[in-house]
Amino acid sequence: MRKVAVIGIGSTKIDEQWEKSLRELAGDAVLAAMTEAGLDHLDGLYAGNMMSSTANQQQHLGTYIADWVGARGAEAMRLESACSSGSAAFRAGLMAVASGEIDIAAVVGVEKMTDSPGDEITASLATAADADWEVSQGISFVALNALIMQRYMHEYGWKHSDFANFSINAHQNAMNNPNARFHMPITAEKYEAAGMICEPINLLDASPIGDGAAAAILVPAEKLSGNTAFPLILVAGSGAASDHIAIHSRKDPLWLNAAEKSCKAAYNQAGIGPNEIDFFEYHDAFTIMAALSLEAAGFIERGQGPRLALDNEIGLKGRIPTATLGGLKARGHPVGATGMYQIVEAVQQLRSQAGASQVEGARYGMTQNIGGSGSNIITHILTNVN
Amino acid sequence: MRKVAVIGIGSTKIDEQWEKSLRELAGDAVLAAMTEAGLDHLDGLYAGNMMSSTANQQQHLGTYIADWVGARGAEAMRLESACSSGSAAFRAGLMAVASGEIDIAAVVGVEKMTDSPGDEITASLATAADADWEVSQGISFVALNALIMQRYMHEYGWKHSDFANFSINAHQNAMNNPNARFHMPITAEKYEAAGMICEPINLLDASPIGDGAAAAILVPAEKLSGNTAFPLILVAGSGAASDHIAIHSRKDPLWLNAAEKSCKAAYNQAGIGPNEIDFFEYHDAFTIMAALSLEAAGFIERGQGPRLALDNEIGLKGRIPTATLGGLKARGHPVGATGMYQIVEAVQQLRSQAGASQVEGARYGMTQNIGGSGSNIITHILTNVN
Repeated sequence: MRKVAVIGIGSTKIDEQWEKSLRELAGDAVLAAMTEAGLDHLDGLYAGNMMSSTANQQQHLGTYIADWVGARGAEAMRLESACSSGSAAFRAGLMAVASGEIDIAAVVGVEKMTDSPGDEITASLATAADADWEVSQGISFVALNALIMQRYMHEYGWKHSDFANFSINAHQNAMNNPNARFHMPITAEKYEAAGMICEPINLLDASPIGDGAAAAILVPAEKLSGNTAFPLILVAGSGAASDHIAIHSRKDPLWLNAAEKSCKAAYNQAGIGPNEIDFFEYHDAFTIMAALSLEAAGFIERGQGPRLALDNEIGLKGRIPTATLGGLKARGHPVGATGMYQIVEAVQQLRSQAGASQVEGARYGMTQNIGGSGSNIITHILTNVN
Repeated sequence: MRKVAVIGIGSTKIDEQWEKSLRELAGDAVLAAMTEAGLDHLDGLYAGNMMSSTANQQQHLGTYIADWVGARGAEAMRLESACSSGSAAFRAGLMAVASGEIDIAAVVGVEKMTDSPGDEITASLATAADADWEVSQGISFVALNALIMQRYMHEYGWKHSDFANFSINAHQNAMNNPNARFHMPITAEKYEAAGMICEPINLLDASPIGDGAAAAILVPAEKLSGNTAFPLILVAGSGAASDHIAIHSRKDPLWLNAAEKSCKAAYNQAGIGPNEIDFFEYHDAFTIMAALSLEAAGFIERGQGPRLALDNEIGLKGRIPTATLGGLKARGHPVGATGMYQIVEAVQQLRSQAGASQVEGARYGMTQNIGGSGSNIITHILTNVN
C-alpha cells in the first residue's frame, strides 16, 4: 500500500450561499485545491454528499463536479454514508491512490441545504436513520440524539450545564476561522438560556446546517519531489466502521463502537495512540456526540467526556484541543461536506496556517466524522513531515 | 496492487418485489454470496444504489445493509453514479481490497423502484442528467437517449428496424435466466409494432425498471488456497471514466469517450484487447447504447454498431456474444443494481454456470455500466484461472 500525501486544500465559507449553485460551490473548493497543488488535471474525483437528490434535484455529483472543474475523462463517483459522506469520499480517494489504481485524486464534500424548506431538510436528515423502525415512529434526527443525551445524563449523573464548554469552546475557536458560519462567542448563561429543540438538546447544543464545500488533493507520497510550497502532509492512519443503524438494536447506546473500532484501526496504521494526538476534530453535531467521541477515542474513560469540557482540556492549550476552527457547532455542518472541512482544517493546523487557533507544535491531528446516530464512523490521522 | 478474486455471488429475481423490503432484497443477495464463499463476516460493504432516498425514504445504505446481514463493525459506504452505481461500488470494493486496506469486501447493487409512482421514478432518473441545463428544459432521460438515437440514424443512415436484433437477442437469452424480469421472446415484427415512447425509441428499445439486488464477495487472490468449490475468478482489468454530464457539451454525442477510455484502462490492465474478449455484458438501457458501446469498446468501427446486430454477431455463437443472460433489456434494469447483475452474470459464464446461455470456452468476460447519457462509464474484465 502506497503512502498518500495531501498536497492541496480548498474550502468555501459555510453560509446561506444563495448566489452560488451546487456546482459552483463544489467547483470553488476543488479548483482552489488544484491551484494550491499546482495541478490542471485529475485522475479521479470522489464527491461526498448526502442530500442533493432531494435538496437540489441533482445526483451523479462525481461526474457533475468533474465536468465543471474541467477534469475531462477522470474517474468520478459520489460517496454517501449520511453525515460521514465527506470522510467516506476521503477514504475512497485514499484507497484509489494507495492501491495504485490512480495517481491524482480530488476529494470534495459538498452540501447545499438552505435553498429548501426546513421540513424537507428534516425529512432528508432522517434518511440517515432507520426508515422502517425509527423514522416511521415519527422520530427526527435531533430526537434520536436527545434520547441518547437524556440516557447519558441519567446514567452518569451529568447536568445539562456540564456540556456548556463544548459549545463555548467551538464558538470561541470559530472566531479565528473566516469560513465559519458563526462569528459569535457565547457564554454559559447564553447556552443555558437557549431555546429548547428536543429535551435536553437546546439550540446551542446543536450544530447549524449551511451551504459549503471543502476539498483536498491526494497523491502518492513516493512521487513528491520535496520541493513543495507547504510542509508535506501525510495520511498516517485511516479507519472506518459501522454499527447497528437503529439505536434500539445497540446493547449500549452510550458507547460508540464504530468510533472505538475506527480509531483503533487508524492508531494502528499510524503506530501511535491517543497520547500522541495533538488535536481532535470531532463530530460535535450535538454536544453529546462530542462527549461520546472523546471517550471512544481513548482520551478519557467511559462516562467522563464532559469532564474534559469542564476542565477546559479541550481548549487550544488543553490536553486535547478540539473543534479548533469551530467544529460542527460553530464552523457549521453542511452534512455531506463536514468530513472534508475536518480534513482541510487538520491540514491547516499541521501547516501552521490556523492563525489565532493554531495548536503550537502540532504533529498529529485526528479527524472523526459520524454518520447516523453513531452507526458509521470514519477516523483519519494526518501528520506533517518536515 | 494486490490481485483480487471474486469468490461468491448472489442475486435476486428482478421483478415487482412488493413482498420484500429494501433491506431484505439487498440482504438476500449479500447473504447468498457470503454463503457461497463460506464466510460469516465481512471487513467492508460497498453498496451501489441510485434512488433509495426518494423511492424508499432511506439513505445510508452501507450501514443499513451491513447491519441487516450481521456484518458487525464492517466499513460501510454507498456509491452513487446514477445508473453505473453498481459498478462504482464494485470498483470501490476492488480498490479497498487491492490497496490492502481490507481483506474481505462484499459489494452489492440494490434498487427498489416499483413501490413508487411512475412520475416520481421518471423524476429520480432525471437526476442523472444536468438539472440546470437539461432537466429544466423538461427533457426526460428517455428523451435524451432519443435525441442521440435520432442523430445516429441520421448521420450513419440506419433505419429503426436495423436495431431490432439487439432486443431480440436479449429477450432470447433471458429465457435461460431464472432471475430475468422477462421470459418472453420477441420478433422483428413485434419490435417494430411496439408503442412509441419518444421517437425513435419505442417500448422494445427500452429496458424495464424493476426491484432487485446482486452481490459479490472480493478477496485478495494471494490469500486463496486453491481448494475452492468453483473455478477461481480474477478481476483482470478495471477502468472508470467520465465525460461532460450534458450531451450538448460533447463535441460528438455519438461517441462514448468514457467507454473508450475506461475500456482502454481495463484492456491495459488485463494485457489483452477486444479480440480476446469472449462475451460482453453491455449497458443496453436503450438499443442505441448497445450500438455505441460496441463501437467504443473496439468491436466494430464507428457508426457500424447495428451491423453486429444485423449479422447476429452478438448471439451466443457470434463474434462477440452480448446480453448473454438477458442484458438490461430483458433481465431488467434496477438502475443502481445493474452493474452488479453484470458482474454476477460474467462470473456465472466464466464458471460455466450459464445453462443454455453458456458461451463455450469463455475465458475473458467484459462488463460495461453506463451512468447518465454516457457521462460515467465503468468497465471490468473478469477471467477464470484453471
